[in-house]
Amino acid sequence: MPSYWSKYPEIDHHITLVCQLIEKRVQARNTDIQEAIVQLAQAGGKYLRPAFFFLFTSFGQREKQNSEQLTKIAASLEILHMATLIHDDVIDDSPLRRGQVTIQTQFGKDIAVYTGDFLFTIFFELILETMQDSPYMKVNAKAMKKILVGELDQMHLYFNQKQSIRDYLRSISGKTAELFRLASSEGAYFGGASPEVVSKAGRIGYHIGMTFQILDDILDYTAKEKDFNKPILEDITNGVYSLPLLFAIKHNPDAFKELLDKKDQLTAAELRKIAELVLENGGVEKAQKLARQYTQKAIDDINELPKIKAQKQLLQLTNHLLKRKI
Amino acid sequence: MPSYWSKYPEIDHHITLVCQLIEKRVQARNTDIQEAIVQLAQAGGKYLRPAFFFLFTSFGQREKQNSEQLTKIAASLEILHMATLIHDDVIDDSPLRRGQVTIQTQFGKDIAVYTGDFLFTIFFELILETMQDSPYMKVNAKAMKKILVGELDQMHLYFNQKQSIRDYLRSISGKTAELFRLASSEGAYFGGASPEVVSKAGRIGYHIGMTFQILDDILDYTAKEKDFNKPILEDITNGVYSLPLLFAIKHNPDAFKELLDKKDQLTAAELRKIAELVLENGGVEKAQKLARQYTQKAIDDINELPKIKAQKQLLQLTNHLLKRKI
Repeated sequence: MPSYWSKYPEIDHHITLVCQLIEKRVQARNTDIQEAIVQLAQAGGKYLRPAFFFLFTSFGQREKQNSEQLTKIAASLEILHMATLIHDDVIDDSPLRRGQVTIQTQFGKDIAVYTGDFLFTIFFELILETMQDSPYMKVNAKAMKKILVGELDQMHLYFNQKQSIRDYLRSISGKTAELFRLASSEGAYFGGASPEVVSKAGRIGYHIGMTFQILDDILDYTAKEKDFNKPILEDITNGVYSLPLLFAIKHNPDAFKELLDKKDQLTAAELRKIAELVLENGGVEKAQKLARQYTQKAIDDINELPKIKAQKQLLQLTNHLLKRKI
Repeated sequence: MPSYWSKYPEIDHHITLVCQLIEKRVQARNTDIQEAIVQLAQAGGKYLRPAFFFLFTSFGQREKQNSEQLTKIAASLEILHMATLIHDDVIDDSPLRRGQVTIQTQFGKDIAVYTGDFLFTIFFELILETMQDSPYMKVNAKAMKKILVGELDQMHLYFNQKQSIRDYLRSISGKTAELFRLASSEGAYFGGASPEVVSKAGRIGYHIGMTFQILDDILDYTAKEKDFNKPILEDITNGVYSLPLLFAIKHNPDAFKELLDKKDQLTAAELRKIAELVLENGGVEKAQKLARQYTQKAIDDINELPKIKAQKQLLQLTNHLLKRKI
């Protein structure tokens, strides 16, 4: 397991259990699939969603908690995330994910599509095992739908130079923020926190998710390829225009039109040119400002949570996420 | 809607409602997706799974049935089927499905992958809306997993000339028969039939599903392309060796080895040669015999059901399926 959480030994412990559960649940006769999933599970993902889940369980009553149930729910979050990652990579034809070759590069598109589907079924199973008789079963179904609709919205906007900031925000709200919201609110709920904390947790998760995605999109423009483990700016040739680019286009549409009209035919040199233009036209700066606003909303809510250790850790993590370079 | 059920006006009526519900539930901002799904829903699929579902509801008590719930469950079966069809077509790169160009040919692989995923979420939603507090929620999760595992098993056997008949049967058992079993048993259960009928229904559905898939595989060798709406024998170049071929290989392995070693490089002429060899070596005959055995199992169980109109229709349909040419 990655040492990302080494400063947070309790979370680290929980995440090790989640990772073990995932490995156990993805047993399949088809060893390729199993290997593919285990590899992805161990490939240094940050397990952010399970981590936020566990942090929020701390606002409940430890003595009433069922640790097996909590591990399963945390695993369901990471599994849903993994399923969408795998299908995203099929769609983007991404060669790399988490610094490793993607499943469809290594095992082929076929394995990748079914591996994602297989993970959806395990997600479904885990939800049924842990949430029967709880309103969160429907919440999960809705969240899953919102995530898919977010992906579909994004696809609908491919290569659209006239999409609004609002279109972008709506898409990442579904695609990314929704799962952070779910992780946080069900952490509080199944941990046994008060309804006020549950509702606040959902809002905090949502705002952290928005920040997280915006920062991810900013990193395309500021990270060096070797740090970021992802071919920089591949989004643009795939037709996905993220926030820094959209802000820059809004500021100076003519500077981008001719280049972007080349769509997926852009050369590496032209992509670098676009990156420079985005910086020159204040795209990154404005995106950073918006990310700070979302972070501030999260921090304001975290400040109103009971002052326990997890509350302090949430503050630390949120500040840390805002500063991440990779 | 197709007129496949015109001789069964009640089923025809139910299926029209199912089709309308599907169209209503797949509303999406992304009109491409919506169009793609509606097109597939209307493209002349036989709605066999909803049909078996409704036939088995007749063994319950009409006055206690909730027709909205039944329509939703029937729709969930067809939606799960559609989701797997769409992903199968992505994997096979099939140009045609139900005589029409497939979703990924028309809209691209991206849309096809997410459209399948989107349908999985609607399946999940419908299950939650209709089955909360029933054991069938878990039965559905298990069935979904078995279907995926069947697909994965099939993939695991790609281009394997030494796979056994048992391997093939295990794969189609998951890939096809499981959903027929589910349709039939939940028809009886949610229709309010006795536990004996529910259990018999599942077995009947399973055996009909096995027959159905074997016949589908036989048609690759006996149908003319214009009748069958599917490029004949594309399975073989994709590495999927079905029952007639496996029986023929078992009878005379040397006759096939050199040809099959060409894997996906087989020419149309060589495929025709394989088809001839399969017929010459009794592959189709043996597969037909096995299909008849499965049909007989289904018929024996149907004969023990209460002698109502639906029982007679089940017998008719089962006999009809065995004779289908396309």
